[in-house]
Order: sequence, then structure tokens, then C-alpha cells
Amino acid sequence: MAKRDSKTGAANRVGKSRPGAAAADDTRITALKLPAQPLSPEMAAYFAKCEEKLGFVPNVLKAYAFDMTKLGTFAAMYNDLMLAPSGLSKLEREMIAVAVSAHNRCYYCLVAHGAAVRQLSGDPPLGELIVMNYRAARLSPRERAMLDFAVKVTAEPWLVEEEDRARLRHAGFADRDIWDIAAVAGFFNMTNRVASATDMRPNSVYHRQSR
Amino acid sequence: MAKRDSKTGAANRVGKSRPGAAAADDTRITALKLPAQPLSPEMAAYFAKCEEKLGFVPNVLKAYAFDMTKLGTFAAMYNDLMLAPSGLSKLEREMIAVAVSAHNRCYYCLVAHGAAVRQLSGDPPLGELIVMNYRAARLSPRERAMLDFAVKVTAEPWLVEEEDRARLRHAGFADRDIWDIAAVAGFFNMTNRVASATDMRPNSVYHRQSR
Amino acid sequence: MAKRDSKTGAANRVGKSRPGAAAADDTRITALKLPAQPLSPEMAAYFAKCEEKLGFVPNVLKAYAFDMTKLGTFAAMYNDLMLAPSGLSKLEREMIAVAVSAHNRCYYCLVAHGAAVRQLSGDPPLGELIVMNYRAARLSPRERAMLDFAVKVTAEPWLVEEEDRARLRHAGFADRDIWDIAAVAGFFNMTNRVASATDMRPNSVYHRQSR
Amino acid sequence: MAKRDSKTGAANRVGKSRPGAAAADDTRITALKLPAQPLSPEMAAYFAKCEEKLGFVPNVLKAYAFDMTKLGTFAAMYNDLMLAPSGLSKLEREMIAVAVSAHNRCYYCLVAHGAAVRQLSGDPPLGELIVMNYRAARLSPRERAMLDFAVKVTAEPWLVEEEDRARLRHAGFADRDIWDIAAVAGFFNMTNRVASATDMRPNSVYHRQSR
Amino acid sequence: MAKRDSKTGAANRVGKSRPGAAAADDTRITALKLPAQPLSPEMAAYFAKCEEKLGFVPNVLKAYAFDMTKLGTFAAMYNDLMLAPSGLSKLEREMIAVAVSAHNRCYYCLVAHGAAVRQLSGDPPLGELIVMNYRAARLSPRERAMLDFAVKVTAEPWLVEEEDRARLRHAGFADRDIWDIAAVAGFFNMTNRVASATDMRPNSVYHRQSR
Amino acid sequence: MAKRDSKTGAANRVGKSRPGAAAADDTRITALKLPAQPLSPEMAAYFAKCEEKLGFVPNVLKAYAFDMTKLGTFAAMYNDLMLAPSGLSKLEREMIAVAVSAHNRCYYCLVAHGAAVRQLSGDPPLGELIVMNYRAARLSPRERAMLDFAVKVTAEPWLVEEEDRARLRHAGFADRDIWDIAAVAGFFNMTNRVASATDMRPNSVYHRQSR
Repeated sequence: MAKRDSKTGAANRVGKSRPGAAAADDTRITALKLPAQPLSPEMAAYFAKCEEKLGFVPNVLKAYAFDMTKLGTFAAMYNDLMLAPSGLSKLEREMIAVAVSAHNRCYYCLVAHGAAVRQLSGDPPLGELIVMNYRAARLSPRERAMLDFAVKVTAEPWLVEEEDRARLRHAGFADRDIWDIAAVAGFFNMTNRVASATDMRPNSVYHRQSR
Repeated sequence: MAKRDSKTGAANRVGKSRPGAAAADDTRITALKLPAQPLSPEMAAYFAKCEEKLGFVPNVLKAYAFDMTKLGTFAAMYNDLMLAPSGLSKLEREMIAVAVSAHNRCYYCLVAHGAAVRQLSGDPPLGELIVMNYRAARLSPRERAMLDFAVKVTAEPWLVEEEDRARLRHAGFADRDIWDIAAVAGFFNMTNRVASATDMRPNSVYHRQSR
Repeated sequence: MAKRDSKTGAANRVGKSRPGAAAADDTRITALKLPAQPLSPEMAAYFAKCEEKLGFVPNVLKAYAFDMTKLGTFAAMYNDLMLAPSGLSKLEREMIAVAVSAHNRCYYCLVAHGAAVRQLSGDPPLGELIVMNYRAARLSPRERAMLDFAVKVTAEPWLVEEEDRARLRHAGFADRDIWDIAAVAGFFNMTNRVASATDMRPNSVYHRQSR
Repeated sequence: MAKRDSKTGAANRVGKSRPGAAAADDTRITALKLPAQPLSPEMAAYFAKCEEKLGFVPNVLKAYAFDMTKLGTFAAMYNDLMLAPSGLSKLEREMIAVAVSAHNRCYYCLVAHGAAVRQLSGDPPLGELIVMNYRAARLSPRERAMLDFAVKVTAEPWLVEEEDRARLRHAGFADRDIWDIAAVAGFFNMTNRVASATDMRPNSVYHRQSR
Repeated sequence: MAKRDSKTGAANRVGKSRPGAAAADDTRITALKLPAQPLSPEMAAYFAKCEEKLGFVPNVLKAYAFDMTKLGTFAAMYNDLMLAPSGLSKLEREMIAVAVSAHNRCYYCLVAHGAAVRQLSGDPPLGELIVMNYRAARLSPRERAMLDFAVKVTAEPWLVEEEDRARLRHAGFADRDIWDIAAVAGFFNMTNRVASATDMRPNSVYHRQSR
Repeated sequence: MAKRDSKTGAANRVGKSRPGAAAADDTRITALKLPAQPLSPEMAAYFAKCEEKLGFVPNVLKAYAFDMTKLGTFAAMYNDLMLAPSGLSKLEREMIAVAVSAHNRCYYCLVAHGAAVRQLSGDPPLGELIVMNYRAARLSPRERAMLDFAVKVTAEPWLVEEEDRARLRHAGFADRDIWDIAAVAGFFNMTNRVASATDMRPNSVYHRQSR
């Protein structure tokens, strides 16, 4: 029977009776049993570069490591979209990643890319805001138009029409930028679903980054 | 015209051209101009207690301070629901607050009560998880049943029926506990809407708490 | 096996085989077994005043009577919001109550506050209309703007922005009025959920009032 | 500027400054200007029968009277579905009409068929309940299965599958009854939309019937 | 266990192990066992005319043939709405049928009326487009306004207001045309639901027509 | 003013006054002006292979040809997912493509992959059915479980949990197959959005294939 007095409830019932919420996230990366394959030389170099630059290999890469072709095509597309030259800054691309992932309520992507927004912007509350509700953030008209488009194409892609693209052009985006907004929003609509479908867990280190 | 090279994008375009996302949150608390009234002795004591215990007065209390009756009734209901003895621990009540506020995407409540979950649980990722998607958290059956009920009564209250209450009883909740789950979920459905309707901003200090 | 002839169907199958739809609503007020506590002197006086003015004690008050603190805080907030001086008339506040409860399809609140709209307006069809679809009512621009805001903050609070408040100001509402619209809408979003979560039943007398 | 004191708000602002909500409903039946044609002998007899039995001609018939073929086909289908022998009682068919119209929030149909449920059942609160939320009514398993099917086929017809029909059979419905449930639900999904598209207004007399 | 090599997957697993998707559609017309009644002379003539003009009797007519009154009222309403003189061309009425049925994802109506759009327009891709997403079609302003209204009244009839009718008038539609758009959209909201509720199957011949 | 007689409506108003619905789809491939770059040797070989095998280069490849890196990463991921060995047959992967694209109402992907389902299955109505409503198709339990998962992860990825994966395992899918279902569903959630955001048009030849 439930106790009436909750003074010690948190400590007694919850705090001690279970491990931390992210406890197993670094060891049981997805709900699928897919044994990692030996890394190809190219992927071994990529993992080494991650370790060097980030201090760890993102769990999504480990999740794809059961198949070198899949790992390679995923990494190639990710790196082109998020890191190659673009009319969108890296921060803007990460903001799209988080706004899309917030609509889709994707744990993995919100943790990993929320950290990226905090770090690239040097403004931790900005990362929080886009996770929670980007409409409550004080965004520039350019940023707002960009996220409105990315979220509309996420939520109701069948309603996107010329006037939506016109709004982006009015906010200063070139056609190539519109492609990039669509491509980044599209990419996270893919990864959100792969992550949710497989219960992919983010590296626990992200939670503490850039707070 | 947009630049193709984004190497310095974050720093140039965003980092320097705007203040932090939470910059004005402590000075412009809502979008309404409602001058604060002199605090009644009771409310002055309450504010002093907040300063002493928390180190600050939560912005929601300042937002209600244009009218002592409204401030008083809000504080009385809040304190009874969230702090008085109950079959639900304080952490459980805060978990409900966050799960409901996540459904409603309420910036104020997610920031303030997300911090409370981090602090009461001693497990920062748990706070993150419930903000993002409580279904991805590794909850006890009791916690999961509690949040499923709170979110259903938030999202589609017209569909709640006896079998939903039966599920709570099966998970060990007494009738009084069911009332408390409903009352806490109901309360945050109220405050989420007052906060969203008035663009209420959380104290910036919450962002860094218990990380 | 089902009969083909329905001539006497209504009388035979339904009318006689079950009690009226509101038959038990005055005796089994919620689905929870929460024994009433002795009324505090303040609450006893309040109940007596209800009996005197209305001829009965609203079931919602009886439902809260298992705990004098919860009854007291609920009654205090209700009375301030719905009866204290405001830029909104009492009828306008009841119209918000009904429009919000219609969105949430809350039996208790639609019955009790639908009756209030019928009575305060002296126009029974107005109460019906707001229960069914307030958009079909012939409202003044002020009333329509008020209900549009209340229903948007009910249905999609995360989408409320400055332009929604601007629309209210354009319709003549002061900032204090906007608070009151938000607070009344928020309050019924709370009570709708407490009522739905507990299957709260309205006093049967409401059904016949002000027809 | 809005007044702070609302004591006389209802009377001053609303009650006197506008006509009743149903004031024009008997004279301006739809938002379209479609002059009535001379009634055919068959339709003249039908209208006379309505006057005799009901005391009035339902506005929906007047709305269709701009074209005798459309009036005739509508009346023929309505009379077959709602009045001809069926495994469903007339009350059951009216309950479907109201539950479907409640989902679609159709003013005309809720007023007219809500009155029919009150009258046929001899239980006014039953009519109220189905307008508000049929799930809160104390229905027999047969009635509940029938309305669940009718509302599912209204809200998400693309999800109806064999297991939905199996549930009806389990509740005692024959295949012919299932057709009738589908046909009545379908019919009101048609009329709800014609009524909403044209702003069709119900005869004001319905509001007071069978209270 | 699943094979890794899929080279012959399509042929082996699917192509040979099951009949064509429309194989039984001409023999098992609905999921209900409702024996056909002898055709009345009027209906026998109607069926003969279908055979003569179309080469077959549409399955929907066979589905209604368990009851001559229901068959007759359905056929009369259908023929008036879709074939009688109107300000809407027959193609326009079929376009409404398909756009409404696409929203409701109705297999029967999309197959039968998609074929009609292909045939009447002489433009097969137009039929495809309206099945898939009418917003992607290059429609005239008149057609677009017509389908926007039909789909809004299908998806959210409770939101239709005077400004929606004004948009139709602005696009050149007379009040009588607005009625016809509403009536055709309403009719398919009915038949979509009867078809989905009974799993009605279209004549297989439609699939190959006017490609 | 609109004419009352529609006998010649289709021919007069629509058929002659506009080009076919797919008329410009092969020349104006997206709404963005992004000049094609010279093909890299690898991509030139790929395009030549498309011409040889299909008789044309799919428009999506032409749309990506403004940037060789983006074209290459897209083609590599597509070819791995849809053509490489997998526990899913090629037809099954195309069925997922169409079911996902039907939920997202994506013109490009429904046309191109609907044709692929028609061709690979040798059963044109199967392609139609999945475009319209896969739930109306007579699928094997394996196919149905696969599409239910793909559509749930498309529509509400945040609700996917272990019991959804368990259902796939129960239907005979290995963990590697579950990954592939998720990956193909995810991929089309990406391409649907890139296509909708840019108004990408399918090669007109698809419409007539495998009918």
C-alpha cells in the first residue's frame, strides 16, 4: 500500500532503487543484437579522428558498425550535410537538427545535437529552448523562417508549397540554401526514425557538455 | 547574399549578433504589462522564504504579483499539490509536471520543473529524458503507469475511462493517489497554458542547476 | 438475435431496461472512493451559502471534500477567477469555460457551465451553441477573439505567440483582460482533466436549468 | 477601455446589445441564396405531413427546396435510413446521428437529433451526454459497441478492419445491422458536411423540446 | 530464418505465394453476408444500362442490392449529384470525389473515381496526382479553390466559415455551385465510410482503365 | 457566371485549356534553380547504367546533380538500402517505400516507387492499393507486420517501443531485418521531405509503366 508521507519518497523509492537514467546507454547502444564487424581502414581512421577530436565515438557510428557499407554511406552523407561548406552555418544546421528532432521527440538526436547547439552557440539556454519549443526562443527572422520551414516539412510535408519557399527567399535564403535546409531536415527525419525504431541511446557524456 | 563558407558562421552570424537566449528572461518575465502590487505580509514572507531556500523568487510568482489574491490562491494550490504529504513522492510529482509540460511544449515549466527532476532524483539525464520523451526512459512499472495516465489525461482527456484507472490500481496506486496524479497533471495543464498565453520566462538560473 | 422490426425498439430495449442517464450522478459523484472529511467551519459556511443561493452544493465541491485544504484552495481560486471584479463579464468568463470544456469534451463542466451561460445570458440557445461549436454562434468580434484565443491556448498552447495577443488587444482587451482570459482558460483545462480523470458527474438539476 | 467591475457585465454588455443566438435561425436558413422552387405534389404532401406530425418543417428540408430532385432524393434516403424497419431501434439510429455529429461538431444536426434522442428516450440527460461525450454515458455494451464503431468510421475510416466488425458481431449485431450502423454513420457524415459548408441553422423550436 | 540474399526474393516469396491483390474483388464484394434480392424492374433496367454503357455493373450497386429501397435511393442521389446539370463539370465533380476519398484513404472510391478522372480528363497523370496529393497538381485557381474547400469540409467541417465560401465566390463559383461542391464532398464522405466500414472492393477492371 | 449545363464541361473547360498534369515534369524537375554540374566519371557511368537498364535517368538523380558529393552520397545510400542483399526482398523494400510515401503524400516517391511495386510484383493493383491504403490490401502476416511498423515509425516515431519490435520478431523478422525495415522507412521519410520541400517531379514515363 502506498505511504501517505512522501518526505523521503525521492530518496527511498526512486533514488536508490534504480540506476541512473543513462546508466546503460554506453554499453547497450540499441535494442538490436547486431555484432560489430571489423572496421575497414577508412572507418578505423574515422573512429580514431572522432576519439581525437571529440574524445569518444558517437554511439550512432557504433550502431552502424555491423555493416561497413552502411556505416560508410551514413558517415559520408552526415559529414557532407553537416560539415561541408554551405550557406547555412554549422550552428544553423544543428538548430535544424534539434528542431526536427524535437517534433519527432527523438531521445538520441536531441541529446547529441542539443549538445552541439549549446557548444557551437556558446549559449546553453538556446539548446534547451530548441529542444523544448523553438517558437519560444528569441530568434532572428532568418533563423525563425528556417526553423518554421524545417518543422513544416517535418510535420506536414504534403502541405509545403511555393509560398513556403517564397518565405525563405524573403528571409534571404538562396535556392541552394533552401536545398540545404530541406536536406538537413530530411536527414534528421531519417535518423530520428532509425534511432526510435532501434531504441538508439546517446553517449552519456553529451548530457554534461557545454552546460 | 549568403556566404558559401560557414567555417566562422556560428561565431560571426549568431554568437556575436545577438544576446544569449535567456538574456532578458529575468527582467521581462511576461509579455503583459501588469505592474506588481506591494506584497502582502503573507506573500512577503513567502518570497523571503523562496530567497532563503532557493536563492531566488521563481518568476511565476513575480508574474502573479500584480494581484495579491491571485498570487495567494496560486501559491496555496501549488504548495498543497507539490509539497504536502501524498502517496506520490515529490520526485514523482515533478516527473508528472515535466511529462505534462513536454506534451504541451511549455518553455517555463520544462525549465523550472526539469531542474527539479534533476535535483530531486540526483540523476540529471532523467530530467532530460522526460523533457524529450518519457517513453524512452527506463522507468519502473509504477512510474510508467503514472506518466502514461498523466499524459493521456493531458492529450485526450475525453478518452479516459475506468480501464485507465484500473491500470493505475494494478500498478499499486490507491484511489487517493489517483486523485493526486490527476490533480498534478491538471494543475500543469493550467500553468502550461497561463505560461504559454503570456510568454512567461523562467529564471535563467534554472538552466545551470543540477547538471 | 437482433429483431428486424424496430417499431417499439426505443421503448422496449432502452427506455425500460435502464435507468436515466443522470440517475446516479447525484450519489456516485466520482469513480474514486474518497470518504468526505468533516467540513471546516469556513467550508461549512461556503456549502451553506451554495445551498441558499443555488439550492444545492455543486458536486465538484463534494468531490474535493475528502481534504479540506484541497477543497479550500480550489474554492478560493474558482471564486477569484469566476466571480471577482474583472474586465471580463461573468458571462464572458462562463463562455470561456464552456468553449474550453467543449474542446476537451468534459461532461461535468459542459453541464454545469452550459447552464451558467444559459442563465447569465438569458439566451438558452447560446449555451447550446458554445457546447456544440462556438464558431457557429453569432458572436461579437470581442467575444469571438476571446474564444478563439481561449481555444487556441487549449488546443495548441505551444503555438501561441505575440500576434495572438495582438489580436486580443485589437479587439479591445487590456493586458489585465488577457491575463484573465488565459487564467480562466487555464483553470478549465485543469478542472476538465480532474473531472475526466475521476469521472466526475454533474448535479442532475443542471440539465433542466434555464431551458 | 474595459471596465474593471463586471457586476453588471452580463446584462449591460451582452444581454441587451444583441439578439438571441437562435434569433435568425428560422428565417435565414443557410448562407447561400438559393430561391425555393414550387413544391412538387409529392413534396408538398411531405411538408404537410411534417407540419401535422412535428408542428413545423425541418429547416434542412427547406434548405433543399431549391431543387425538387435533390429534396426528393435526400428525403427518400433519410426516411429509409432513419424510419424504415431495421435491427436498430429508432433511438439507436438517432444516437448514432448525435455521436457522429458530435465528432464533427455540427450545430444543425446536434440540435435537431439531440432533441430526437431526448424525445425518443424520454431521458433528456442522455441527449446531452451524447452531444458532449458519449463515452461518459452509462451505455449498454450493445450501445457502446455501436457508437464506438460509428465514431471510428467517422474519425478514421481508413483504420476500420475486420476486428472492428467482429466486435459488433460479438455485441450481438447481425451483418444487416452492421450495414445499417455504417449507413447511418455515413449519412450523417454527409449531412454534417453539407450543413457546415452552408451554415445551415436548425429550427429554433428544437432547443426547447423534451427538456 | 530470413535469407540474406534477396535476388530472387520478389519472385519466390511474394509473386508465387499469393494471388493478385484484386483477385477476389469481383466475387467477394463486401465483408458482410447480405444476400442480393431480386432486382426490381427499375433497378434491372439500371443494371442493364450499366452493362451496356460501362461493360459491367459497379460493385457498389451490387453491394446495395440486398435491399431495393436502399439501392434505389443511393442510385437516385448518385445520379443526380454526379450526372445532372450543374455549374460544375462532370470532371470537376469526379475531382472532388477523388480528393475527398484521398483524404479518407478509401480504396473503393479511389479506384473507381480515379479511373473516372483519368477518362474524363484524357490525362491519366491527373488522376494519379489527385489520388496522391492534389496540392502537387498544377490546377487552375478555380479547381484549386474547389478542392481546398472540399478537403477542408472533409477534414475539419467545424472550421468552415463565411471566409471559406467567400474564397469560392472569388474564384467564380455561384451559390448554387457552392451547394454542389458541398453536396458532392458530403456524398463521398458518406460513401467512403460505407465502403470502409464494409470493406467494399472495386471492380478489378477499373485498375486498367484509361492508363 | 457559371453555366448550368455541364455536358461539355470536361472537354471545354479543362481538357483543352491546360496541358497534361505531368507535361512539364521532365523539364522542370524541382522548384529550385540549381544548375547541374559536370558529372564526375563515376556518376557519368551511373547515369549511363540507368539509361541502359531503365531507359532513362530518374529525375531525383538529376535533381542532385548540382553537387557531385551530394549526388554520390545519395546514390550510394540508395543503392545499398534498396538493392544490396538483405533479409527483405526488393519488392518488400519497395512496398515500405510506397507505404511510407503514402503516409507523407509524396507525389515523386509514390509515382516512382508505385511503379516499382507494380513491376516487381507483377501485380499492378498491389501498387495501387499501397498508394491508397495498405490496410485494405490482402497482405501476408509478414508483410502486414512490416508495413505496420514502417508506418508507425513514420507517423509517430516517439511511440515505438519494444513491443513493436517484438511483433516483428513474432512475424519472423531477424534483428538485421528490423534494422533494414527501419532504415528503408527512415530513408523515405528523408526523400519524401526533400521531394516535397523542392516540389520534385517524377519522370512522366513512370505513369504508364507496368499497368
